[in-house]
Order: sequence, then C-alpha cells, then structure tokens
Amino acid sequence: MPRESDIIAGLKKRPSVKRDVLLGIGDDAAVIKTGEGRELLACCDLMVEGVHFRTDWSPAGLLGRKALAVNLSDIAAMGGVPKFAMLSLALPEWCSDDFIAELFDGVFKLAEATGVSIIGGDTSSSRDSLFIDVSVIGECETGKAVTRRGAKVGDTIYVSGSLGASALGLSLLEKGFRLDDSQDPNDARPQAVRKHLVPEPRLELGRALGHAELATAMIDISDGLSTDLWHILDESGVGAVIHASAIPVAECVTAIALEGNTIDHLMLALNGGEEYELLFTASPGKTQEIEKLSDLPGVKIYGIGEIVARRDLLLARNDAFESLSPTGFEHRI
Amino acid sequence: MPRESDIIAGLKKRPSVKRDVLLGIGDDAAVIKTGEGRELLACCDLMVEGVHFRTDWSPAGLLGRKALAVNLSDIAAMGGVPKFAMLSLALPEWCSDDFIAELFDGVFKLAEATGVSIIGGDTSSSRDSLFIDVSVIGECETGKAVTRRGAKVGDTIYVSGSLGASALGLSLLEKGFRLDDSQDPNDARPQAVRKHLVPEPRLELGRALGHAELATAMIDISDGLSTDLWHILDESGVGAVIHASAIPVAECVTAIALEGNTIDHLMLALNGGEEYELLFTASPGKTQEIEKLSDLPGVKIYGIGEIVARRDLLLARNDAFESLSPTGFEHRI
Repeated sequence: MPRESDIIAGLKKRPSVKRDVLLGIGDDAAVIKTGEGRELLACCDLMVEGVHFRTDWSPAGLLGRKALAVNLSDIAAMGGVPKFAMLSLALPEWCSDDFIAELFDGVFKLAEATGVSIIGGDTSSSRDSLFIDVSVIGECETGKAVTRRGAKVGDTIYVSGSLGASALGLSLLEKGFRLDDSQDPNDARPQAVRKHLVPEPRLELGRALGHAELATAMIDISDGLSTDLWHILDESGVGAVIHASAIPVAECVTAIALEGNTIDHLMLALNGGEEYELLFTASPGKTQEIEKLSDLPGVKIYGIGEIVARRDLLLARNDAFESLSPTGFEHRI
Repeated sequence: MPRESDIIAGLKKRPSVKRDVLLGIGDDAAVIKTGEGRELLACCDLMVEGVHFRTDWSPAGLLGRKALAVNLSDIAAMGGVPKFAMLSLALPEWCSDDFIAELFDGVFKLAEATGVSIIGGDTSSSRDSLFIDVSVIGECETGKAVTRRGAKVGDTIYVSGSLGASALGLSLLEKGFRLDDSQDPNDARPQAVRKHLVPEPRLELGRALGHAELATAMIDISDGLSTDLWHILDESGVGAVIHASAIPVAECVTAIALEGNTIDHLMLALNGGEEYELLFTASPGKTQEIEKLSDLPGVKIYGIGEIVARRDLLLARNDAFESLSPTGFEHRI
C-alpha cells in the first residue's frame, strides 16, 4: 500500500478542479469561492478502528467527539468557523444500540458546543472494523482563509498550547493504562491520555488569527510539529530555525520524565502526532497583537522560531544546529 | 446492530440544527441557506467491502466511479447541480498502487464528465475491509430544492428509466457471473450487471425537473421503488396507487425471465435496490412538460400511478388491489 503522502502528491497533479475552487487538495481544508463576502471551507477526516483508535481505549462518546474534533481543528487551522457536519459510520455487528447512541451523543454535544449543525450522514454495517468518517463545511470572510502557503522570511513561528502529551498518552494506552473515575484528573498520566482521547480544537484562536489577518500561514499539528512545519515550509518555499529551549513541552510529559522514565521529552514534543494545536507564522510587526491572543481562555501561544530563506528545518540546541527531517508520522497502531 | 432506518429516526429527533439549515437529516441531501439566490446541497454515501460490493465483482475504476455516482444521484434527486466532492478511503494492505490509481481514475473521470471538482479527502490504512466514503456539495436556486415532502393528492407518480436490472445484476454476480470483454454488451446478463456496477445518475433530468419546478417531491431509487415511494408518502403525509401494468420492467429482466428462469420480474422492479433512477411526483397540469423531458438523451419517463389521500400504498393488478409494505431493503451482501 502506498503512503498517504504519496497518494496526496499524486492527487494534487490531477486537473479536476474548476475556477470556483480557490484551494483544492492538500491543505487543511479546501476553499470554495462564493459571491457574498464569504468563502466556504470543506474538509473530511477518517478514523478507523485498529489504525486510529481501539474501542477498549475510550468510551464511545469520546470516539464520536474526537471524530468531529479533528475536523473542527482543520477548520480552525484555516482561520474559519465550522458550520455543518456529516457523519458516515460503518458499524460492526457487536455495536449495540447503547454504544451507537453514546457515540452520537459525543458528536452532537461537541457540535452543540461549537455551533455546528449535523446535517446528514450515512450508516452501514461492517464485516469487521468500526469506521467513522466526518466531513465538515465551514466559512471565512473572502480572502481570509489561512493556507500553508504564506510564510515569509523573517516571520515568527508560533505554536498554541503545549506539545508531547498526546503521543505520551497514546503510548500509555498501548501499555495498558486506561482512564477511570478513581484517578485524579490532574495527575500526569490521565492528563496525557485525555490529551490524546479528548483533543480540544483551537477554534477561538484560529478564528481570531484568521479574522484579524494575523497569521501568514497555519496548520494544525496532527502529524507532529516537525512534519507539519515541513508542510508549511514546502508550500511556502522557505526554511525555518526553531529553538529547542522555546518548544513548549507539556507539563505532564516533564513530570513523567522526572519520575525517572526514559522519555526524550523534546523528541516527543517535536515529533508526537495528534496534538491538534495550531502552528502558525506571523510578521514580527504583529508580535503585540499575537501576544494579546494569549488572553483567550485556555490557550497559550509560544514563539518557537523564525522563517528563513534557506530550505531547511534547523533545530537550535545548546549553540549547535541540527537538521530535522520530517518524521513522516502516519497513523498506525 | 440497529437498522439504519431506526438510527436515522433517532437522529432526526436530535435538536442540533441551526436556522440556516433548511432541511437536515433524512432527505437525499441537506439544504443550506445562503444569501445569493442559491442554496447549498450536501450529502454523503458510504460503500463498504463485503456489504455494498466485492472487489472480484468489478474493476477498481468502476468501484470508484460508483462511489461518486450514488452521491450525484442524491443531488439529482434534489433537483440540484453537483459541484464539489471529497473522498475518504480506508485501504487494506492488499491494495496496490495500480488498484488505487485505477479507483481514483474512476472517480476523477466521472467528476470531469459531470463538472464536479474533487476538493479533498482522507486516506487511511485498514486492517481488513476497503471502505469508500464520498461526500458531495451541490447547489440549486433558492427555494427550488425538491424534497420528499411535497407530493399532493392527485399528483401523478413518475419513474425514469426502467427497473429491476440492478437487483438482477447483483444476483447474477452472487451466482458467479462476471463482466468480461468477450461478452456482447447488449446481451441481457452483461446489461443487468452493468446496471448494478455502473449506475447512471440522472443529473440532467433531476436538474430539469428542479429548475422548472415541475416535481412536487422526488427521491432516487436506492432502496427499491416500493420502499422509496413509502419515503415520499411518509414525508408528504399521503398515499398512492400504482399500476402493475405501468411499471417499466427492464428489457434484460424480461429477456432472462422469458428464457424460463424463475424470476418474478414485477417484484424485482418493485423491490430491487440500487437502481438510481428518479422517482417523482408532479401535478397533472404538468403532464405535457414532463413528457417533453422524455426527449432528454437516454432517459425515458413513465407515469406509474397517482397520489391519493388514504395513507396506504396500493398496487393495482388485474382489477384487484394489493397493499405494498416497504420491503425495508438494506444493503447486505
């Protein structure tokens, strides 16, 4: 089977896009021209049992919630507002009425909380795995969609939130750790697992950056900081230097590392996937405005580096530089 | 596992729809308000290996083509024009580069032929089954979306094309018949199998009916004439009488029945799924305009009955009436 990145590269070459498609395959969402001061955004994201999740890792409600959340994160990364969602489910025989109702509850609760209407979908039986595919339609003001293409030499590189927890949570789940009600939710392990199972799409931040035209390029971190930053660099035709000391490593990752576990917490933060934080670039002249957005509830923003002309991604650590290749993270449990 | 119809009934009760959703879950497509003389249509349709298809039945290109075609049929059934499509694929290990390229070829060729832009998608590996989910965004003029709700007492009931061939094709495939180049494509068996594997969405007819506001209600026949007519009757709060002698049974079905096979060709035409013909109602005053549409290339239109007040679906045959319950066809190989 070919890699997803190869499939996307092949698809981008196919000439099947009309004039009203401002941006087609290959960004967080497509951008469609409409005539009324708005543009439509559209994206879809697929979760497959055994590849993206295991049903013993998570209550059904969190599965449904995550299937929608990762799509909302794509709309956030375009600077847009999500409006409508459709949900396709292939359900194996073991899925009970209760399981399905709980899965839908997870989807509908997050939809309600984010102003999204569930407008349709499809269901089927499945011989084996559970498949959940969600597509979302959103919108932004004309010309304000934030693509991966606009990073300019001299721009500052920012990331929201902190990194590494989702990958750590995944590895804890693989080792048998499970969420339960007896845990203190502030403990490092439940925190890491919740970051993986209950991602928080940065809708308010993405929207603020898009509306005020502050971000020159943006992506959500689904494949890992290094890989996703490479997506911006490739699309924008530039390079970057990021600073090891500035990478915001999640507290729960540091805490577990301090217990004597052999975790390279910087590598987790650089390469861990499914963070669903926003990675974006902005002109140095916008620093104050960006810092003000750190007042948005629940979101801190960290400057982690600069865009440079040389087509490379360098990590500055202890006065030395190392070249970071994309790790090519692809979902595989 | 619950039935799809029960899942949809549950979802329709959930109050998660905002004011700009003119029609949510439960029709062929959702209808979304926009402010510029147009409404958006959105739908999605899922094809799962072992449930909707088997890979030894069909070249990959026809699989991809059908995954898009069934969505285009939903847009046709709303009287709309399809504009954009997204494609999610979960690919088992055995899928070769060639298989995937051929599948995409099938999607892109039909997209090109129907003016649809492929704007995005997602791919994943799959542990077992191949899973193809397509979502389509289309449009129609404001107020002209043709729903299932508008059938009125006295309306004539019409169906496009002829019926029964797809179900016959499916049963031939199940018995081991396969398409190959040595066959005369005009023979009954290859014709029936092609109707199943290469459905032709009735875009031109659906569009004409919607644009001219000729149809009062419309649906595409995916579950079978009797079940899909019940969908219109339920949503419109009416009943119907249809005439056995007027049901257009596909020639290939009649031909195979004449060979002495035990086929109840009328039952195939009444209950066979996946025909992707249009079933619609129109005022008797529009008969001439409807008949003119029969000039559209490749589409004949047949009047098969009338809408009545009594909430039942009656089949008139040999001067007697029998009541037709929805057969409840659901995909299951």
